[in-house]
Amino acid sequence: MLRVGILGGGQLGRMLLQAAANYPVETWLMEKEEDCPAAHLCHHFVKGDIRDFEQVYQFGKGLDAVTIEIESVNEAALEKLESEGVKVYPRAAALSIIKDKISQKQFYKAGGIPTAEFQVTHDLGELRKLGSWLPAVHKVAAGGYDGRGVRILRTTEDLEKGFDEPAVLEKLVSIDKEVAQMIAVNEKGETALYPPVEMIFNPSLNLLDYQISPAELPQQTLWKIEAISLRVVKDLKSPGIFAVELFVSRQGEVFVNETAPRVHNSGHHTIEGNFSSQFDMLWRVILGYPLGNADSILPGAIVNLIGEAGHNGEAHYEGLDEVLQMDNVFVHIYGKKETRAGRKMGHVTILSKEKQELVHKAHRIKQALKIVSKS
Amino acid sequence: MLRVGILGGGQLGRMLLQAAANYPVETWLMEKEEDCPAAHLCHHFVKGDIRDFEQVYQFGKGLDAVTIEIESVNEAALEKLESEGVKVYPRAAALSIIKDKISQKQFYKAGGIPTAEFQVTHDLGELRKLGSWLPAVHKVAAGGYDGRGVRILRTTEDLEKGFDEPAVLEKLVSIDKEVAQMIAVNEKGETALYPPVEMIFNPSLNLLDYQISPAELPQQTLWKIEAISLRVVKDLKSPGIFAVELFVSRQGEVFVNETAPRVHNSGHHTIEGNFSSQFDMLWRVILGYPLGNADSILPGAIVNLIGEAGHNGEAHYEGLDEVLQMDNVFVHIYGKKETRAGRKMGHVTILSKEKQELVHKAHRIKQALKIVSKS
Repeated sequence: MLRVGILGGGQLGRMLLQAAANYPVETWLMEKEEDCPAAHLCHHFVKGDIRDFEQVYQFGKGLDAVTIEIESVNEAALEKLESEGVKVYPRAAALSIIKDKISQKQFYKAGGIPTAEFQVTHDLGELRKLGSWLPAVHKVAAGGYDGRGVRILRTTEDLEKGFDEPAVLEKLVSIDKEVAQMIAVNEKGETALYPPVEMIFNPSLNLLDYQISPAELPQQTLWKIEAISLRVVKDLKSPGIFAVELFVSRQGEVFVNETAPRVHNSGHHTIEGNFSSQFDMLWRVILGYPLGNADSILPGAIVNLIGEAGHNGEAHYEGLDEVLQMDNVFVHIYGKKETRAGRKMGHVTILSKEKQELVHKAHRIKQALKIVSKS
Repeated sequence: MLRVGILGGGQLGRMLLQAAANYPVETWLMEKEEDCPAAHLCHHFVKGDIRDFEQVYQFGKGLDAVTIEIESVNEAALEKLESEGVKVYPRAAALSIIKDKISQKQFYKAGGIPTAEFQVTHDLGELRKLGSWLPAVHKVAAGGYDGRGVRILRTTEDLEKGFDEPAVLEKLVSIDKEVAQMIAVNEKGETALYPPVEMIFNPSLNLLDYQISPAELPQQTLWKIEAISLRVVKDLKSPGIFAVELFVSRQGEVFVNETAPRVHNSGHHTIEGNFSSQFDMLWRVILGYPLGNADSILPGAIVNLIGEAGHNGEAHYEGLDEVLQMDNVFVHIYGKKETRAGRKMGHVTILSKEKQELVHKAHRIKQALKIVSKS
């Protein structure tokens, strides 16, 4: 049996380990928190800091392969492990490119991959000179995650709300749709493309409302999305699984927003909705099996379950019964003991041939299910 | 979070724990072998003997609920736990009826549930007097499992091959088809019925070849199967999940063969093939959630992966790549380190709208995939 380590023990690790139990593989997991969502599902839990060189190196030494469920890992340790023959998914070099927003944007530019125009800023002083670039998005180079480290700057006064650290200032693209393309790449360079997913935002809150797969787009736009996403992962020269997030403008132009070199929130519907889920697919890549079938069985939608604002503490799931009563609905609770405002606590997948039913149920679920702390 | 214990750590426990990770539940598992298929997927592993009163009682005390993945558990301990308020799935009384083949057959008879005619035999002496009952099947009352403890007796000489212990002698029914009906029952007595599954046997080896769901049967026969299976689980007066195995004669008569009060091999296709899998469904029952949708998403077939004859030792999976290359095929390897002749080592599920494709792929998989020991 191959010995495979996962860095990070959140919900992505959890679902990766659920899928691992279909295959002959011995699993290791490193995370600081012993009661993290994934800890109890691995064969060998190692309490440790995934950002620490020595700990990551010691964790990976002696394993056949290491993968990640979050970008913020010590990539120098991964590089050393790679040089010593441990397979790393994604390759340390690909992770390095992506982890830093500046190098990620420069990588797109160098490869001729369409992406919003940008400027690098190292501090507020540099940012203040870029008033002519507004409206724009300011993103910190390192450590941004799940909306943290991102600000929209519209007016010159807004510039003061920018980041006083290395960052990227991107011109705002007039977005019609936001989509994500999951792609798996194996060691031979073969690829499997999932049908793209469309993100539906709540315009008043500017929050992701739900996701629908497959995205409804003209055939030509789909081809562009596939071609551009393929270019991204080919240029990254790494096996693994990738989520390429893209903007589609009203004119049908396609821009890469960013890429995640790992299993991703935008692929959760593939657990029930596609023949080979994103988690299954990554195991196939790591274990050297043939790539799976990324085709969808039925169209699907995902609703993320987010901790209610104003609730911090032991998690309770109000309305779970109502949601579990709905047909063709799959609940995934991540087992986080504590809820916090905005924390990802679970997701619900809906399958249906009818897009109307997906949208209708997504709204019902958002209404019905609230994650609150014990009152 | 509810605290739930599972007695037994084989593949059924493994798949039950894979499904548990979708819900807020804290899991315990008891099994003798620390490297059993399910051990690493629970929150709390307890090394112990599930047949031992004291160990089972201590295991269950303080938990909210206990369930089983095999019948051979100490039911007296379960009874005591039940009397102290621990919920047990299935109820100890239902397990008692089923665990002993004599009481199980008497239960069917008492309830007017059609089942093959039978005689109880306590030793070979009693059996020898029943030559007029041949051809018949002799089944030991206690401890039979997966074909062990079952013999077909055709001639009076065969009587000597019968069991010299408490057993049941059943008249051979002329079988056209063998089917299984999975049913879930919740605390309120509500039920969810899966489409019945048809077992296809290899006539030359008398071994289960593959299973197909839904079974192809006249509507009237399906109704009989449902009605009879419902009667069985209603009479058992227990929440949980049940596999009722039935014979269908050429005349369209339906007989109950036996019932398993737990998740069951004949329901494995429900993981991918049905909206709520048998494992998901049992969690819904235990956690007090609404029953799931038992409908099938696509028709499915299961091929069991059985250890090759003549191979004992570290398991190797020959032909796995070929099978993983097939579309719409889902591999489940149970992670047993050692293979033995006839041991259940995994299963493969095939989904397709076309019955022909299910049958064709089932045969290809049986040809391609062999579980052997290292040579």
